[in-house]
Amino acid sequence: MNVAIVGASGYGGLQLVSLLRRSKKHKITFLGGEKSSGLKWNEVYPFLTIDNNPSIESLSIEAISKSANVAILSLPNGISSTLTPSLLKRGLKVIDLSADYRYKSLDLWKEIYSQEASTYDRNDYELCKEAVYGLTEIYQKEISEARLIACPGCYPTSSLIPLIPFLSQGIMENEGIIIDSKSGTSGGGRNSKVNLLLAESGEGISAYSIFNHRHVSEIEQILSLVSDNKITLQFTPHLVPLVRGMFSTIYGRLKDPGLTSEDCKILLENYYRNFSNIVILPVGTYPSTKWVKNSNNIYLSLKVDSRNGRIIILSVIDNLLKGQAGQAYQNLNLISGLPVNNELDLKNFYP
Amino acid sequence: MNVAIVGASGYGGLQLVSLLRRSKKHKITFLGGEKSSGLKWNEVYPFLTIDNNPSIESLSIEAISKSANVAILSLPNGISSTLTPSLLKRGLKVIDLSADYRYKSLDLWKEIYSQEASTYDRNDYELCKEAVYGLTEIYQKEISEARLIACPGCYPTSSLIPLIPFLSQGIMENEGIIIDSKSGTSGGGRNSKVNLLLAESGEGISAYSIFNHRHVSEIEQILSLVSDNKITLQFTPHLVPLVRGMFSTIYGRLKDPGLTSEDCKILLENYYRNFSNIVILPVGTYPSTKWVKNSNNIYLSLKVDSRNGRIIILSVIDNLLKGQAGQAYQNLNLISGLPVNNELDLKNFYP
Amino acid sequence: MNVAIVGASGYGGLQLVSLLRRSKKHKITFLGGEKSSGLKWNEVYPFLTIDNNPSIESLSIEAISKSANVAILSLPNGISSTLTPSLLKRGLKVIDLSADYRYKSLDLWKEIYSQEASTYDRNDYELCKEAVYGLTEIYQKEISEARLIACPGCYPTSSLIPLIPFLSQGIMENEGIIIDSKSGTSGGGRNSKVNLLLAESGEGISAYSIFNHRHVSEIEQILSLVSDNKITLQFTPHLVPLVRGMFSTIYGRLKDPGLTSEDCKILLENYYRNFSNIVILPVGTYPSTKWVKNSNNIYLSLKVDSRNGRIIILSVIDNLLKGQAGQAYQNLNLISGLPVNNELDLKNFYP
Amino acid sequence: MNVAIVGASGYGGLQLVSLLRRSKKHKITFLGGEKSSGLKWNEVYPFLTIDNNPSIESLSIEAISKSANVAILSLPNGISSTLTPSLLKRGLKVIDLSADYRYKSLDLWKEIYSQEASTYDRNDYELCKEAVYGLTEIYQKEISEARLIACPGCYPTSSLIPLIPFLSQGIMENEGIIIDSKSGTSGGGRNSKVNLLLAESGEGISAYSIFNHRHVSEIEQILSLVSDNKITLQFTPHLVPLVRGMFSTIYGRLKDPGLTSEDCKILLENYYRNFSNIVILPVGTYPSTKWVKNSNNIYLSLKVDSRNGRIIILSVIDNLLKGQAGQAYQNLNLISGLPVNNELDLKNFYP
Repeated sequence: MNVAIVGASGYGGLQLVSLLRRSKKHKITFLGGEKSSGLKWNEVYPFLTIDNNPSIESLSIEAISKSANVAILSLPNGISSTLTPSLLKRGLKVIDLSADYRYKSLDLWKEIYSQEASTYDRNDYELCKEAVYGLTEIYQKEISEARLIACPGCYPTSSLIPLIPFLSQGIMENEGIIIDSKSGTSGGGRNSKVNLLLAESGEGISAYSIFNHRHVSEIEQILSLVSDNKITLQFTPHLVPLVRGMFSTIYGRLKDPGLTSEDCKILLENYYRNFSNIVILPVGTYPSTKWVKNSNNIYLSLKVDSRNGRIIILSVIDNLLKGQAGQAYQNLNLISGLPVNNELDLKNFYP
Repeated sequence: MNVAIVGASGYGGLQLVSLLRRSKKHKITFLGGEKSSGLKWNEVYPFLTIDNNPSIESLSIEAISKSANVAILSLPNGISSTLTPSLLKRGLKVIDLSADYRYKSLDLWKEIYSQEASTYDRNDYELCKEAVYGLTEIYQKEISEARLIACPGCYPTSSLIPLIPFLSQGIMENEGIIIDSKSGTSGGGRNSKVNLLLAESGEGISAYSIFNHRHVSEIEQILSLVSDNKITLQFTPHLVPLVRGMFSTIYGRLKDPGLTSEDCKILLENYYRNFSNIVILPVGTYPSTKWVKNSNNIYLSLKVDSRNGRIIILSVIDNLLKGQAGQAYQNLNLISGLPVNNELDLKNFYP
Repeated sequence: MNVAIVGASGYGGLQLVSLLRRSKKHKITFLGGEKSSGLKWNEVYPFLTIDNNPSIESLSIEAISKSANVAILSLPNGISSTLTPSLLKRGLKVIDLSADYRYKSLDLWKEIYSQEASTYDRNDYELCKEAVYGLTEIYQKEISEARLIACPGCYPTSSLIPLIPFLSQGIMENEGIIIDSKSGTSGGGRNSKVNLLLAESGEGISAYSIFNHRHVSEIEQILSLVSDNKITLQFTPHLVPLVRGMFSTIYGRLKDPGLTSEDCKILLENYYRNFSNIVILPVGTYPSTKWVKNSNNIYLSLKVDSRNGRIIILSVIDNLLKGQAGQAYQNLNLISGLPVNNELDLKNFYP
Repeated sequence: MNVAIVGASGYGGLQLVSLLRRSKKHKITFLGGEKSSGLKWNEVYPFLTIDNNPSIESLSIEAISKSANVAILSLPNGISSTLTPSLLKRGLKVIDLSADYRYKSLDLWKEIYSQEASTYDRNDYELCKEAVYGLTEIYQKEISEARLIACPGCYPTSSLIPLIPFLSQGIMENEGIIIDSKSGTSGGGRNSKVNLLLAESGEGISAYSIFNHRHVSEIEQILSLVSDNKITLQFTPHLVPLVRGMFSTIYGRLKDPGLTSEDCKILLENYYRNFSNIVILPVGTYPSTKWVKNSNNIYLSLKVDSRNGRIIILSVIDNLLKGQAGQAYQNLNLISGLPVNNELDLKNFYP
């Protein structure tokens, strides 16, 4: 595949370059970035050089469609919707990392992303319906046939993979689910925000967007779909002082309190048996985000309280890989007819 | 007061020295430590010098009771119970930082701290009943009259202060409470454990002791007492990469779903109106542990989901001060007849 | 003293508020900040509340001079020079944290701060000559009588205090001095710069401004003055992943190779015997920046290589206190006729 | 090659497993570890599983030599010398990560490692002379023919690679070289030492072993050899709060002050033109240790002060890869007749 990376200078873009620059199956043929357009890549990123030292180009639909047959868009919310329809029209496939096509309903998007909606006048209702939600292991078949893939946010990825097997099979109560998530600060992007300074976020833990983080609706949409029920839940994101890593502690209640931890572990193993990147840990083994750093893996561990059927599930991912660029790469593999985890057997050096 | 700090070389001891060494009201008259006994304090701790450079002494009941009228014990679980009865007999008051006297029932202690119970043969049932739980703002009166004060663990302190007003007044459901806590690594003590190395705990988030952390029973004991109900809850401790700080995210459900965030905030303000170190934040303002670092304050913030009466309470403390030595110092003030927060107006330099 | 803090929202301003808000000797009577002017202080900084919750005001010479008799300016380079002459004219004393009056020669300032010089048209040559360099322990007498004090940068403070005793007394060679400094990221200010993000500066060490950091000329100016020789040296600043702390490793050569480490230690002790905040460590004891965190202390340690007379001096400071606001506070004490370290016996809680 | 990893549970061992477990050229046939011997690898290291889940074995010369033709020893200093002679006798090649064979003179080793020398009675003078110093890019030819390779320490690697081109060609003065090094805490090993706790080393910078770190003599031995002069220098190691990464700032003086930064850069490029893992940065581009994290690269940058011919060279490595296991892997490639950087094109994900 000839791949355009559009928005190459953020963390999503950098991870994509890192994954793609020496790929034997995919080739970077376009690198788009507004701020550094015109510059040579290797001068701007001396630590991540590309062999032919391409120039960074401004975002032109013409140039993208001439050089590539897939465009991966790693752009701020809203901007993607200004490029995607034209790219699709010219026959490209689009893998979008933003939230623009994550909702089946454009009206819901306009409600949740109201600020962006007031800037970008969107009417692509049909595209929103057409787009496939790029949660790789769940929508593998749909993704492989799609022209437009809307990759999930990092919080939804870390929450949905553990929850879907339980909710789609009616094993967990729909009510009272709580997701307590902790994210490294790279999740905030390569933007100069005061609260993401090391001096501010170092040596501190904080929570934000209580009850109203945008990712809640995304999680609820998918869980409602798979469970065929209207799911509402509590989701609390926290910022913790590490560069990369996401840890979600998920609380729920089993319908059948007779199920043991071992039963539930086997259930997860069966559900994801075809995906080597989803690792179900032995009962009693609890993961650290460090275990998945620089990898596309997700580790899951769970425990059931036999007194009351309450269950705790832990999930860890690298927020910039499985939570972002790594998942996009899985989807790129799928639309290219390659094995889903091709070239994704990344080395995790501990510690 | 003439104060003996017994176990001066751990983090608890160091904080106590820092608080006491220039106090106008209390005087350090004994510094006990096994490993460095015989050495001069200032040679071992050149960064925390004491004006008369006292020697560190081995733990002798004789020596402690000759020099001090209060002993603060900052020792591993179990050891305190070998000293406390003798110290009390000689007329000293004892402020204990270990878990040895936190349970009304010695049998429960033996169950929870089974390993220590197998090493230390205890029969001080009466003392367990007599000891006052040193959660300062709740048991202020009892503490001021006690001879033996069992200071709470850091997790219980950060959980009980936000929960007690709601449970003691029957405002929150007893069922389904979840406490998701995040702690800096100094909570593990100044012990050389591999998992607390920077190389291991840096750049990682992990959970431990799911369902069976020892502090759960401590929290449940007090909540059951104040609510006059048997409370069982979920508690998940996490280790996050910062030196000091503890963040608890507490999930519950209000009995009356008509209560607003503002109502609950006022309830907390009223409950703690006499305690300047407990700060109730405006609704929508969320604290960072950094706000309380190096202080004895606890900041609380809450939000109610009006759709279903669910409530989230956030609490932040410095695990080594309000979570340990600072609370002991409050208790020392109380048994000395001083204002509870005397000499505790500590400067928090942000960031 | 009635004190105006002008530029209250940066780290310098926040430290000043923390030092001043409960002072018994000084009173904050003006809080100036452009971005948040009009807002109430406690709403913007809920973690550092001031009892009467003053408003933040825009920078008006009128308002400052009405309310205060000392102005501490914590502003970007260049801006200070637009306020200082008028404030002095109205009889205020000015303690300036910027570089605007650190050079005796305005022309040198214009050369080093060429960008600022092109924005601000300065002609206050006389003021530059009049201003006293606010390195407290060295210029104590001059500071106490000054109307305009130019506080040193953090790197110069951490370098000059160890070097001046050796160079002013002709004990160290003037040639070949090397200063290798390591700074926490708060030294970069509370500004949203990409390279200061936790995601960028966390888990990494880097150097910057090799040979041409602006502070070199400041260090060289003072060392040349005290040694009565033209000193040129190498200075390399590094950024390391911690919030606050500055460590300088200084390499030089003694003129008399017969001097021992112990001799040099005694020399430093004698030189600074009147300053309790300058601590000379025993030979063989090496400090961590953590020892001075949240304090106004500087710890020095040195070692002489007896084979060749080479000497290494280590200095640690808190870059935001002794390196900035704490030193300003010492100077405020001096111009107020108070003991230099009044109200500066800050508690350093280790770790 | 069939490879025995002896001492698999430390950081060196873990990196080796990570590099070898999916190699197409080398096969792990023995995993030795005392503490966890008898256990299955995947149970102890669930985050770094090996496909056939081998058992960890105790250190038996018999077992090692039966299963492998190369042994990589990642053991505490001294222990290696108890295994190496027997392994060589049985025909194995040995790649040793300890200091046991780094000195040509066993007597010097006994002086520098006096504590180990008092425990282990060594007389293998001949082996010390035979052993090849495993600084890959410098001793490539000798390594490829050796039976015993003594891999350098991390500090020497980060210092020697930048210095050798200048000293071996007589371009830099032999006198007055200063190496100021900063290391992440994983360099201290996976041992429970109090000073390596996150609570101790987090949020602090410190120096240690001033003038007498064991690696000085190792650096001086090699520089004296290549320059044909007795070199003595200053070396100061610092501990900084990050997991992995090593930054060395090297100060020297050029013999010919007419050489420019650009000249010296070209000199380095020529010297290392055959090694893609040694990257010489453009003049004015300064690296962060983050650029080499999880890679086997070393980035060099330099600047010459044209006024006086002084030169500063910066080098960054991952202390656990190029500083330890990665370099061992290069040497394993060489003795296997493979290209030096085979299977070492590791992905560095920034940040």
